[in-house]
Amino acid sequence: MPNFVSLPGFRDFYPGDLAVRKHIMTVWREVACRYGFEEYDGPPLEPTELYVEKSGPEIVQQLYNFADKGDRDVSLRPEMTPTLARMVGARASAMRKPIKWFSMPQLFRYERAQRGRLREHFQLNLDIVGEAGVGADIELIAAAIDVLRAFGLTSTDFVVRISDRRLLRALLLHAQVPEDRLIRVYNIVDKLERESRESVAERLGEEVGLGEAATDEVLAIFGHRDFEAVRNAYGGTHGIGEEIARMRELFEGLEAFGLADYVRFDLGIVRGLAYYTGVVFEIFDIQGELRAICGGGRYDDLLGLVSGSDLPALGLGMGDVVLRELLAGRGLLPATDRLLDYYVVAVTPDERPDVLRLVHCLREAGHSVDYALRHQGVGKQLKSASALNATRAIIIGPDEVADGVVVVRTMTSGEEERVPMDGVAVTEVG
Amino acid sequence: MPNFVSLPGFRDFYPGDLAVRKHIMTVWREVACRYGFEEYDGPPLEPTELYVEKSGPEIVQQLYNFADKGDRDVSLRPEMTPTLARMVGARASAMRKPIKWFSMPQLFRYERAQRGRLREHFQLNLDIVGEAGVGADIELIAAAIDVLRAFGLTSTDFVVRISDRRLLRALLLHAQVPEDRLIRVYNIVDKLERESRESVAERLGEEVGLGEAATDEVLAIFGHRDFEAVRNAYGGTHGIGEEIARMRELFEGLEAFGLADYVRFDLGIVRGLAYYTGVVFEIFDIQGELRAICGGGRYDDLLGLVSGSDLPALGLGMGDVVLRELLAGRGLLPATDRLLDYYVVAVTPDERPDVLRLVHCLREAGHSVDYALRHQGVGKQLKSASALNATRAIIIGPDEVADGVVVVRTMTSGEEERVPMDGVAVTEVG
Repeated sequence: MPNFVSLPGFRDFYPGDLAVRKHIMTVWREVACRYGFEEYDGPPLEPTELYVEKSGPEIVQQLYNFADKGDRDVSLRPEMTPTLARMVGARASAMRKPIKWFSMPQLFRYERAQRGRLREHFQLNLDIVGEAGVGADIELIAAAIDVLRAFGLTSTDFVVRISDRRLLRALLLHAQVPEDRLIRVYNIVDKLERESRESVAERLGEEVGLGEAATDEVLAIFGHRDFEAVRNAYGGTHGIGEEIARMRELFEGLEAFGLADYVRFDLGIVRGLAYYTGVVFEIFDIQGELRAICGGGRYDDLLGLVSGSDLPALGLGMGDVVLRELLAGRGLLPATDRLLDYYVVAVTPDERPDVLRLVHCLREAGHSVDYALRHQGVGKQLKSASALNATRAIIIGPDEVADGVVVVRTMTSGEEERVPMDGVAVTEVG
Repeated sequence: MPNFVSLPGFRDFYPGDLAVRKHIMTVWREVACRYGFEEYDGPPLEPTELYVEKSGPEIVQQLYNFADKGDRDVSLRPEMTPTLARMVGARASAMRKPIKWFSMPQLFRYERAQRGRLREHFQLNLDIVGEAGVGADIELIAAAIDVLRAFGLTSTDFVVRISDRRLLRALLLHAQVPEDRLIRVYNIVDKLERESRESVAERLGEEVGLGEAATDEVLAIFGHRDFEAVRNAYGGTHGIGEEIARMRELFEGLEAFGLADYVRFDLGIVRGLAYYTGVVFEIFDIQGELRAICGGGRYDDLLGLVSGSDLPALGLGMGDVVLRELLAGRGLLPATDRLLDYYVVAVTPDERPDVLRLVHCLREAGHSVDYALRHQGVGKQLKSASALNATRAIIIGPDEVADGVVVVRTMTSGEEERVPMDGVAVTEVG
């Protein structure tokens, strides 16, 4: 007889795990709705070319892709943005802008090398389409912060590190990095925190072909960890000043939102992906124990690429796995014990019809109710009531039926009360 | 430039569609919780052999299966029961019985021939594991009825047709059908409603090898459409009487639940699948326009087969597609217009920080709030407030800032009121 197990990298959600997932999704949805985002969803399976178009052919090695029975090359979705771009693009002309959408898809990756790592996770996606201005950047980053705050996290737990591709580009061009080598520089400096300054300098010379002066200038740029320092150094420089002004507007907006404590300027936030065109940000736990909690940015060219509707856009993704670890570490996961309003007990098998009648009345009134599916002794039934965490047990015996009453027992105190059978269904649960 | 479309048979859920799906799932979850079922979920991808073990190798032609990059034969889940059996089986000994679980998975089928038909749907699954008695049958069928009632459907809209494999088996054995040909008879009579009596008789002779007397007897059995008729004919027959008594107990339980109007005995409900072992039922719309809304039954052998934990079980599945058609036809789908509590308007760009401050306060108080992401004229902003279905607009101009007040406009009436800025965030939405 086979003993089946789940596939490596996939999670089973037993009720306790599902309750945590539901809590996370409930908070995600609640904050997104407060911010005026509307929920959408797309297929978990899309044509592989949709992802290749966005990320290039190298992405395929990370995809859960295969040929379906109709010989289509298809992929389990590794991210939601291409689907969003496809869907918005198809109806863009008929839709009010800005479009504020959210979704909570399960996403999939298959990398051969990843032993023991998950191949699926759930991810909150928030996107704003059709607004090129910094106002949308403020709104999106504020939403990310308020999502985390809604879980009980504070500015002592996490920080949003913010940069802007346009500012970085202007600074690097100013440092004499040729335009066609910007992406290569981004990919190298993206690892600044993990590599030594010397190793980065060497790679800038060898891999990008920068001279010594340009290399020094690039490293000096990333040496500024503070917005004021960058502003003082480059605020008056032609082509950089306006980028700095926009960044300043972003921070002022977040300050008006009351969220200044949560954000930090950080040119080192590059986000390797080629498709970002403006603001980029990542959220980290302050203690630096976990991978990024959330990442996002502006991708003004993607919709044109995928759908032909040339609309500016920005978005973020926040996965459930790192978030869950963070919340667990801070003691911020809710108790997931099931709760039951009533457990109804029959003293003898003869009261069974009365039990069923009452169970149905209570459920009709919106209460969660359970009872023994086959007759058992009263003690065993009350034990079940305890095990199921019932607030109250209702006991019906021959005497109660004769008198038209039931006994209502509060499980914590053991207190009992005789209540007319007709009246019990309207009792509110305390 | 490519114009991407979704894969055939997969739905995009734009916000209006997602709102309907969410309504359906909210009702599913609410009723399941009232009944004391706990929510779980499993992977959308499982080893193909899990489904082959349950349903036989023929199932593969209907599966969305493929070889993954680790050369495993995997399938997008076509149904939830094997996953449930695997999960429960793995922890069965540590779990309280009966186990009452529900889930709302997205399921997938790939049949080459199906042009224009969906290849995915969402399905409510309710299962009770660990209780062999009729009490569990009553509970499950009552839950199915109450789910549909919670959508506003009544006994004039749908009916549950109920049979039992054990009763049917006893009747067919009594009619001299050999035990090893029962499944073949089930599969033929499953089509009784769609085929003529003559054609069924012919197939019973040719494909099952029944003689004329046995064929007549089988047809006579299925001629009884009424429980009392079967009871009168076979109630005293050895081996059949106890099956009839159990069926009677089932109907009495549903009557005690107040649900007698929703159920009908119908020996013609066979459900082709070989793995049912007891009660079987299907729910149909009374007008007979749609495919079955829901189907289920008892499968006492499956857990032993899949997991080695030999536990009795029964369950049902209710898909979102037929249900949605039914609700739409009866005018029972809710309005899915988005609603916004507040839209906050800046008269000049100078009030922008005040707008952001107020927006954040209102959102912190739990309201859904939107505003213009870049400055626009007041008229245009109020138009957005209308388009977004805002209950109220809040207008902040230079005079209001000077006086520390805001203007609150009720959008339907146009009525306006000046309210202290500090007090507005605590105003309840009417």
